Order: sequence, then structure tokens, then C-alpha cells
Amino acid sequence: MRASFGGIWTRKNVLRKVSREMHRIAVVGSGNWGSVACRIVASNALRHPDLFEPEVKMWVYEEKFGDENLTDVINRTNENVKYLPGIKLGENVKAVPNVREVVKGANAIVMVSPHQFLKKVCEDVSDVIDKEATAISLIKGMDITPEGPQLLSTLVREKLGIDCSVLMGANIAKDVAKEEFSEATIGYRKKESGDLYQKLFNTSYFQCTPIEDVEGTEMCGTLKNIIALGAGFCDGLGLGTNTKAAIIRVGLLEMKKFSQALFPSVKDATFFESCGVADLVVTCLSGRNRKVAEAFVTSGGRSWDELEAELLNGQKLQGVLTSHEVQQVIAMRKWEQHFPLLTTIHRIVSGKLPPSDIVHYATASV
Amino acid sequence: MRASFGGIWTRKNVLRKVSREMHRIAVVGSGNWGSVACRIVASNALRHPDLFEPEVKMWVYEEKFGDENLTDVINRTNENVKYLPGIKLGENVKAVPNVREVVKGANAIVMVSPHQFLKKVCEDVSDVIDKEATAISLIKGMDITPEGPQLLSTLVREKLGIDCSVLMGANIAKDVAKEEFSEATIGYRKKESGDLYQKLFNTSYFQCTPIEDVEGTEMCGTLKNIIALGAGFCDGLGLGTNTKAAIIRVGLLEMKKFSQALFPSVKDATFFESCGVADLVVTCLSGRNRKVAEAFVTSGGRSWDELEAELLNGQKLQGVLTSHEVQQVIAMRKWEQHFPLLTTIHRIVSGKLPPSDIVHYATASV
Repeated sequence: MRASFGGIWTRKNVLRKVSREMHRIAVVGSGNWGSVACRIVASNALRHPDLFEPEVKMWVYEEKFGDENLTDVINRTNENVKYLPGIKLGENVKAVPNVREVVKGANAIVMVSPHQFLKKVCEDVSDVIDKEATAISLIKGMDITPEGPQLLSTLVREKLGIDCSVLMGANIAKDVAKEEFSEATIGYRKKESGDLYQKLFNTSYFQCTPIEDVEGTEMCGTLKNIIALGAGFCDGLGLGTNTKAAIIRVGLLEMKKFSQALFPSVKDATFFESCGVADLVVTCLSGRNRKVAEAFVTSGGRSWDELEAELLNGQKLQGVLTSHEVQQVIAMRKWEQHFPLLTTIHRIVSGKLPPSDIVHYATASV
Repeated sequence: MRASFGGIWTRKNVLRKVSREMHRIAVVGSGNWGSVACRIVASNALRHPDLFEPEVKMWVYEEKFGDENLTDVINRTNENVKYLPGIKLGENVKAVPNVREVVKGANAIVMVSPHQFLKKVCEDVSDVIDKEATAISLIKGMDITPEGPQLLSTLVREKLGIDCSVLMGANIAKDVAKEEFSEATIGYRKKESGDLYQKLFNTSYFQCTPIEDVEGTEMCGTLKNIIALGAGFCDGLGLGTNTKAAIIRVGLLEMKKFSQALFPSVKDATFFESCGVADLVVTCLSGRNRKVAEAFVTSGGRSWDELEAELLNGQKLQGVLTSHEVQQVIAMRKWEQHFPLLTTIHRIVSGKLPPSDIVHYATASV
């Protein structure tokens, strides 16, 4: 079966060819998930020396840790002592406080900053970006602009003028850090990007599947946090698993319908991927949105801001923000009757309905 | 928009027409789920007097309860004191020890006996069955015959010569009995059956969706119990939610693939229904198969029979039996590589692999 190529495609030549396509990795962000992601890509950079340069620069928003700069502590201890203590990042990781220095010369850029920093980061680095680079966004959320909703991968693509894939999935950071088996979905627009980022992220305990549906993958990562609020209301009300499973199921269907209404290219099959059903299940069972929504019910009338401050230790409650954003889109287009669960959750979030109405979405006269 | 029908279709005439299509209900079975189902249909029989006769006969396998016959106690107390104590069944329920008496003259037959009794029951009643009757099966499981696997709804259809729908879904009996919000899927072959059984089962807390996919609906109810064993292994090993969500997701995909390999008419959309993703989630979180599989890991080498006897209080462990049956089909057709998770679970169940191999399905050389 092997054709003869007259000796041109010897292994040596292949290696030489590949070596011209070496990738320098930048990780833009160093929170809890950012640090875990950085650790994975750093180990894979060493596993694939034909594809990746060994050094991985990680942007760290500089702050004091004791008397030292956080970057200095990270580089001295090889641990992100603030956001991922106790876990070695890999000797080939270098924490850098200047984001322009991190991105300059890199051509495989992992975006994992907090949502609200992304626009500023893109503006800061736009003139040093390699125009042949590609990016992958691990950030959840969407921006509402006067022209309608904008995905964060689109923001990266437009601000930086480069291709941007996304990585989403059922992967709670602390369990991935412990190397417990998890899956992830890589949504790509260009197949070569999907293949590259699969090589950068895939490990024996972190199984990444690339699919050609960047919008569907990213919408899943955004919308699941709203459904998790509904699941949390069920927990706060002491309802059983049947009810929660119904919320998860109807939530998954409304996620699909909403995504396809905004982006007709979104595929049904995406919702069977890790970014779809699996991440939704994880988020509804053990995510932070679920937790705060449960407390919203049991605390009897305390505000979201108060509960977030008390329960999340500085992390942000994405679901409430996203619910407001998504409901703007629904209201603007008069889609309430097509999304009874999303609408019911938003009304509970806004105090217009009591949490016990969570089970009435099925008969809601929205 | 309303056309004139010359007064023929007055409300009175419509009612008179419907009254000629009255249905007499038989409930064949009275275990825990059978009793809950009986309670629902009994209340709906009274809600729809134009469609259903009020009396609901329920077949009870006669046994002693104290000094009395169980049927006498049920009819005196209006409670199934053995399998659903503390819950009134409805005054219009009559417990009957003779299955032929229950079925004779009935034309809406709810099959909810234990799996292993079904064939015998069908044989017992085949000569008294109303050939215009229809049935609905709530029983999980499949039969392996020399010709291949046979669905229980097919068994009913063939043995009794009548149409048979199925009802499956995310509805743990004890929570439905408490009237906690749940969903169910009715898989039908004839639309009028789907509509009839929706009226018989739908309540404000038990939302039934009819779909034209009896095979897909029933396969979901059967296969989920195998996946739940995988989820239980994860719990026994102390693995986190990421891993369990991966098992649920891959399990759902293999359920779809296996169902469609056996029955090409099975629809993708069925797996988004309550019988699909929702029931799988419930079963992997809180079902009895999950529970015993967890104990299988933590008890270190005790047999399935021992654990079943100890933990299930007389209920049957469906998943292990179904795993053996399904693996027969897979092995016979040499499909192992297409179903790595089902195959891995079966090897763990049979003691050929240690439970810790549950996460290696993704790379399994099956």
C-alpha cells in the first residue's frame, strides 16, 4: 500500500518541514482555570518538541503576595501560590507581568483571562500580534453590543485579526488539576487549528475532541450558567432528582434552540459533546452558580451581590449576568414564548417570580 | 376563520361521539412504580369522564399481608401497604388477584409487571383480550431470543395482537408519589395511542410528551441501567463530577448508536427527551444500579447477587442482567470497538477488568 515518493518524504525531511512550523505558546491569564490550562499545555509542549517551543509564557496580572511580586513567587516556586496552590506548573512555565511581552512572537495564544479584561487585553497587544498566529479562547460569557450578542471568540478574531478557536467542556478546574479523567470540546473554524489545539491540550486524563462548530461550543459554555441557576433553585426548594433532571433536559433544549436561532450553523450534535450535555450536568450538580442560586432560595431575600461576595471568595457569578444579557436578546426579539425556562429563570433572578415557580415553566404563560 | 358545519359539530354532538369511545382501564402490576402509575391514571380517569370509565382495576399478585390477603388490605385501606405505604391510591382503584378478570373488557391496558412475569401474563390473558384494545408498557428491559433482541413492547404486540406504546422517563417512583415535578416520554407507533395515553398519564406534576419512536424510547429505558453501573464505579472509586459527566455523555452516545444499529428508525431527537438524557442523569445520580455498583467497588470482591440481596430489599438489579444481554448482541456482531464504554462496563461487571479501568474506555483496545 505504501507508494514510493523517490525518497523525498524521508522521516528526516518530514521533521525538517515540521520544524519550520514550530509554535511558541502564550497563555494570557493565570487564575484558577488559567493555571490548570497552563500546566497542561506546558507538559504537552515538552511532549511534542516537533510542534512547540518548550518555554510557555504566562501572563500574570501583577499583584503583591506578601512582600514579593506574585510573578516572582510563581517563578521561584513553580506554583501559582494564589490561584492554584500546591500544584507545580512545570519548569518550562514563565510568569510574566507584561502581556505584550507574553504575546509578542507567540503564534499559539491561549486566552483565559477574566471575561471583563478581554477587550482591554486585545487592545493592548493588537500591534505586537503575529498576524500568522492563531488563538483559542477558554473564556465563558458573551458581550451584548448594540448590534446584538457577540461571542468572545469573535471579539478576539476582530480585534486581533487572527483565527480563534474555543475550548469548553465538563472540566471543573480543581479536578483537572488532580488529573481526574475529564473531557473537553475544541470548537474550530479551521481544521488545522482544531488539530493544533488538540495536540496542545489532549492528555490521557484530559480528552479533547475537536469539532467544526465554534459558535455552538462557545454558546454552550455561556448558556449553561443560566440553567445552573434553575438547578440551584430546585436544590434550595428541596426538590428531588426528577425535577432537576427535567430542568437540565429542558435547559439543554433551550440552549440548542437559542444558539441555533442566533447562529444557524450551530449543529445538533454539538449538544452531545462535552461542552453540551456533560458540562451542563457538571455545572448543575456542582458549579458555583448552582450553589449561589440555592442560597438565594434558602437565605430568603438576600441580594445576589451579597451572596456572591460571601460565597464565591472573589470569583464572579456569571449566570446572573448572562441571564440579564440573554433576556435582553429574547425580549428584543419577542422570543419569550419560545424560551419559557430561560424566561422563568430570569424572572426569578429579577425578583418578579418566586423561586417555587421554577417548575411552572412548562405551563408558563410567558 | 371558523368554517360553518351547519350545526352538525355542536359541543353536544362532539361529546356524544367521544362517549362512544370510552376506555376501560386495566393496570397489570402493583409494585412500587405500578402503584404510583395506578394512582396517576385513577385520578385522570376521574378528570376525563368523557374518555375513561371511572373504575381502574389493578392486578395484584396475591400474597399474605399479616393474616389477610394483600388485595383485601389494599381494597380496605386504599393503600398498597406493601409497595407504596402511606399513599392513597384513589377510591376508584380496585385490587384484583386474577389477571384475566383485570384485563377482560378493558381496552386501555397499562403493563407494569416485573419484566420476568410479562410473557406469562400475556399468555394468561391472550384469549380474553379485546382485540380493539391498546396497551402501554412501563417495563424496562429486553429479551434476547435466538433471532436477536426483542423489545417488551414487541412481545406484547405479538403475544396479544394489539398496539403497544411505552412510557419511560426521569421519574423515580417515590418522588412522583410525592407529586414532585417530573417528566415522561410516551413512545407510540399510532398517533391516536400517543394522544390517548398522554391524556391518561399527564398531570400538572407529571408532564408527558408523546413522540413517534417506540423503539428509541424503550431502548433508552433499557440501556441507561448499564451506564448507571459505570457511574456507580466512578462513585466507588471516589472520582469527581467531571469523570461522571464524561461517563454519562459517552453513555448517551453509545445508547443512541446501539439503538440505531438495531432499529434504524430510532431518532436522534429521542435522546433529548425525558427518556433519554434526563432519565440517564437521574439513574446515574440516584438509581439502584448506581448504588450497587458503588458497593461492588468499595466492598472489594463481593458478588452481585450478594450485594443485590443486601441492598435492594427484594428489588432486582436490572443493569447487570441487561449488560450481559446487550454484550451478547455486541459480541455476536463483533461490535466491541464501536461500543468501548458498554464493553468496558461489561468486562468490569464480569470481573475481567478492575473497576479502575472505567476511565480507560476512551483508549480501550476492546
